[in-house]
Amino acid sequence: MGRSSGTKRAILDAALELAATRGITGTTMDDVAERAGVAKGSLYYNFSSKDQLFEALLEEGVGALAENLRAARGTLVGWEAIEALVGALLDRIAANASLAKLMASEIFRTDRAWQKTLFALRHEALAVFAEAIAEASSGASAPGAQPSGAQGADAGTPASGASTIMAASVFGAVLMSGLEWLVFEPERGRDEVAAAILASLSGAFAPR
Amino acid sequence: MGRSSGTKRAILDAALELAATRGITGTTMDDVAERAGVAKGSLYYNFSSKDQLFEALLEEGVGALAENLRAARGTLVGWEAIEALVGALLDRIAANASLAKLMASEIFRTDRAWQKTLFALRHEALAVFAEAIAEASSGASAPGAQPSGAQGADAGTPASGASTIMAASVFGAVLMSGLEWLVFEPERGRDEVAAAILASLSGAFAPR
Repeated sequence: MGRSSGTKRAILDAALELAATRGITGTTMDDVAERAGVAKGSLYYNFSSKDQLFEALLEEGVGALAENLRAARGTLVGWEAIEALVGALLDRIAANASLAKLMASEIFRTDRAWQKTLFALRHEALAVFAEAIAEASSGASAPGAQPSGAQGADAGTPASGASTIMAASVFGAVLMSGLEWLVFEPERGRDEVAAAILASLSGAFAPR
Repeated sequence: MGRSSGTKRAILDAALELAATRGITGTTMDDVAERAGVAKGSLYYNFSSKDQLFEALLEEGVGALAENLRAARGTLVGWEAIEALVGALLDRIAANASLAKLMASEIFRTDRAWQKTLFALRHEALAVFAEAIAEASSGASAPGAQPSGAQGADAGTPASGASTIMAASVFGAVLMSGLEWLVFEPERGRDEVAAAILASLSGAFAPR
């Protein structure tokens, strides 16, 4: 966030706050104008419709996320790349829980006007994870290092095609435990939460 | 699902279909009556308000999920328990993707009339995972088996207090990759998806 300024920024922030409470469907352009403290003419001058407003909001949020993830990964490889990505995603969720909740409820809807934009951006964010996973899987784990007797072993090299599913798995792990932390267990520290997520992804309860 | 029958069942199914498309806020009691093909008097005879209707819907869905997870785990322990739970949750998501989407967008809202009910049920479903994780972590992993040099090692015994965060992590991993599969990559097989999720949780890309 933070790319728009002034009236546009006030409108986007008001729309996000309202949608986090009432959902997008329950939010009207009248509500947004009132919350943002702008005249309706000014609202429509900036965003021609509610669809356009929420498309811009999600585009800004998910687009910034993908950039942020790429920057966090930098030149790291293997497990260090996964650690950096998990930490960066967790920090984004903590910085804007309303947007994270909105994303969680929007990314699997297929009936929205902004579906294509969101699909492309979502894909871009997941791709950062998928790349790191494919690389870490092929590079870091020695043959035979996979859990014996576990069905997980059937995935073969997990890099083989299913890395978007694995990326979604890691993304979902961070999103859900991040929201669990912020909404229900805010007394926990950020590093404790990050460590618990990384433990769940590093085979802490899998056979060795 | 499948516990209510006749008119009540038709109403619950209609409400779920509508909410999956329009969100709960965008769904009116008039819409539900029309979709279910029942008179408004009959609708209100069964559910006194929209809040009561959606509370019943989520209660049925999440309650059935917790029961289902307990049954799937049975007497399994360690990694086998985690495998069984991941498979069972994935199958529930595949059996009712609309309900899974609705759950994903409702479980972190704190402004709903049915908040307390949903919180208790969500906690119950997560507890099944948390128990299995605490047990698997303490029993299955030998000392020193945790990734060296990874921050994950700082979690100590991951069973120590943060097991609800780890449970949310595993739950989120299954929920998000399950929906990713159903919505965007339906050509994949169920076992391939389950294997990819289990690989992501078994340290496939973590150092050993």
